[in-house]
Amino acid sequence: MPNHTYDALCIGNAITDVFSHVEEDFLTDQNLVKGSMRLIDTDEALRLYNLMGQTTRISGGSAGNTAAGLASLGGKPAFLGKVANDELGDNYGHDMRGIGVHFDTPALRDDLASGRSMILITPDGERTMNTYLGSATKLTPFDVNKEVVQGSYVTYMEGYLWDEELAKNAFVEAAKLAHEAGRLVSLSLSDSFCVDRFRSEFLELIRSGTVDLLFANEHELKALYETAELEAAIAAVREDCKLTALTLGSEGAMAISREETVHVPASEVKTVVDLTGAGDLFASGFLFGLSRDYSLSQCCELGCLCAGNVISHVGARPERPLAQFVEQEGFQL
Amino acid sequence: MPNHTYDALCIGNAITDVFSHVEEDFLTDQNLVKGSMRLIDTDEALRLYNLMGQTTRISGGSAGNTAAGLASLGGKPAFLGKVANDELGDNYGHDMRGIGVHFDTPALRDDLASGRSMILITPDGERTMNTYLGSATKLTPFDVNKEVVQGSYVTYMEGYLWDEELAKNAFVEAAKLAHEAGRLVSLSLSDSFCVDRFRSEFLELIRSGTVDLLFANEHELKALYETAELEAAIAAVREDCKLTALTLGSEGAMAISREETVHVPASEVKTVVDLTGAGDLFASGFLFGLSRDYSLSQCCELGCLCAGNVISHVGARPERPLAQFVEQEGFQL
Repeated sequence: MPNHTYDALCIGNAITDVFSHVEEDFLTDQNLVKGSMRLIDTDEALRLYNLMGQTTRISGGSAGNTAAGLASLGGKPAFLGKVANDELGDNYGHDMRGIGVHFDTPALRDDLASGRSMILITPDGERTMNTYLGSATKLTPFDVNKEVVQGSYVTYMEGYLWDEELAKNAFVEAAKLAHEAGRLVSLSLSDSFCVDRFRSEFLELIRSGTVDLLFANEHELKALYETAELEAAIAAVREDCKLTALTLGSEGAMAISREETVHVPASEVKTVVDLTGAGDLFASGFLFGLSRDYSLSQCCELGCLCAGNVISHVGARPERPLAQFVEQEGFQL
Repeated sequence: MPNHTYDALCIGNAITDVFSHVEEDFLTDQNLVKGSMRLIDTDEALRLYNLMGQTTRISGGSAGNTAAGLASLGGKPAFLGKVANDELGDNYGHDMRGIGVHFDTPALRDDLASGRSMILITPDGERTMNTYLGSATKLTPFDVNKEVVQGSYVTYMEGYLWDEELAKNAFVEAAKLAHEAGRLVSLSLSDSFCVDRFRSEFLELIRSGTVDLLFANEHELKALYETAELEAAIAAVREDCKLTALTLGSEGAMAISREETVHVPASEVKTVVDLTGAGDLFASGFLFGLSRDYSLSQCCELGCLCAGNVISHVGARPERPLAQFVEQEGFQL
């Protein structure tokens, strides 16, 4: 593969997390399913926001978090996602560029506001997400920068993007450009509800070879193959996809290719504070390693270290430089 | 005293905390004094923001935090402070009203942006604050709502307001209205640098009887009387002010009036995570008790419980309802 400018181009919904602590009653009163992610419209977003108390706002989004993790490892990530021409969008761009992510998608000039996910944290630490996509839905193939795609070792997309026709087209376009340049294309299944919504399309992407590298956790993989047996799902995905990175929570992670299967235990974490971002940051570590020709086992190990770091504090992005952290943990970058 | 509509009207700079994790080098490179609070102008605010990586944004401000704490205890607080007509300002208003604080100060229609404090958190957990006051400096006597002042058991102001002539006038006006209605007036010294800037004016406010109740920590009180001896400062303030609430960190708190002195030990805290907001939340508890005719010792005890709660997590505002927390700790509200 030719030299690359970016380790990964991460394509995803540009979403700011707006979170608030609520009591259990709040979820019951609002008929919300704890731990779920649902998409909401403007009216519902305003209604819910008016019911929320004190909020904390921090840039997020699954692929955005992965890009942030890559930068924190000292890698060279790019991000493709649509913010609006408003303060939330400005902050999103600031945060991306401030941590060293290449981000050149033009902001939307329209009446849609920047996307945000209203995250309700219950006393048990669970997070219930209510996502208003806003400007993020307006990502189009025109936003795909050919030079960035073809300069990226891998083009990585979150499954959540599949909720919008235009964003889906943007990914298909980017995948085509990537393959033309001999680059890799990767998809994260995002969550099991997302898999339920787009099962046949995701399978088609994988089976047609549009996707070279799949990221999933065990729930998502089982949902993809509609089986309760993880072993059966693993056997199926080994047939369907060149390479799969599978996260297993406290059981660590696996890399599954046609030739080999590696299993790496989870890294030791003193106190699990907040699971948000674990999968996103696993992808950061795995992609960092892949773009540097690490062995699959090292890619998994680095992914687990990054995931272990992010679940030790509140929020889905690294607080301190990951490069320093993983080296302290004995991993030579 | 006649019945009151609000337990306290808190007057202060409406400030959003924008915080970012930085390494020690960052402070050295920028010539910043760790742990300090400095005021910065628009140019410096933009310059510094461009150097910051990932940010988290949360409504703050000293008196704003105190109002939030009062609401969280189940009290009825009001807040007076100036935001701009921008997204940060809208969010500030949302957060205040969302937690149950009466907040009717009209937003500024001007070219100034809403105030924000860029807080740099170093790996040792220390916070270095760089505050751009923005719209907060435009608080004027015209913003003082007579009905709210006269319906409040106490009008409470943060010393930081003294940096602006108009805001100062707003406080003097509010104090006059409060006293006309037979209400109490209170001042928090905010920090020892603030005391150094305004020592003679603060002493004049106290000695003239404009301030009935003073909030200070030991550093601030010693700075006020330019002494290294806490005992001497306590003796002096006992002469000068009707009532002083003095916080002593891990040593708890004291209430000092001409007739009595009470000392309450600090509440037990498992892990101190972030000291920000300890003083602000002590004031919430103390003011809550005062407006309900609790004994001075009970006021201190409630203040210490609230302070102990806020230092157990990141951020200067309560996460879960304080009323529930203090009752779990055996305090009968």
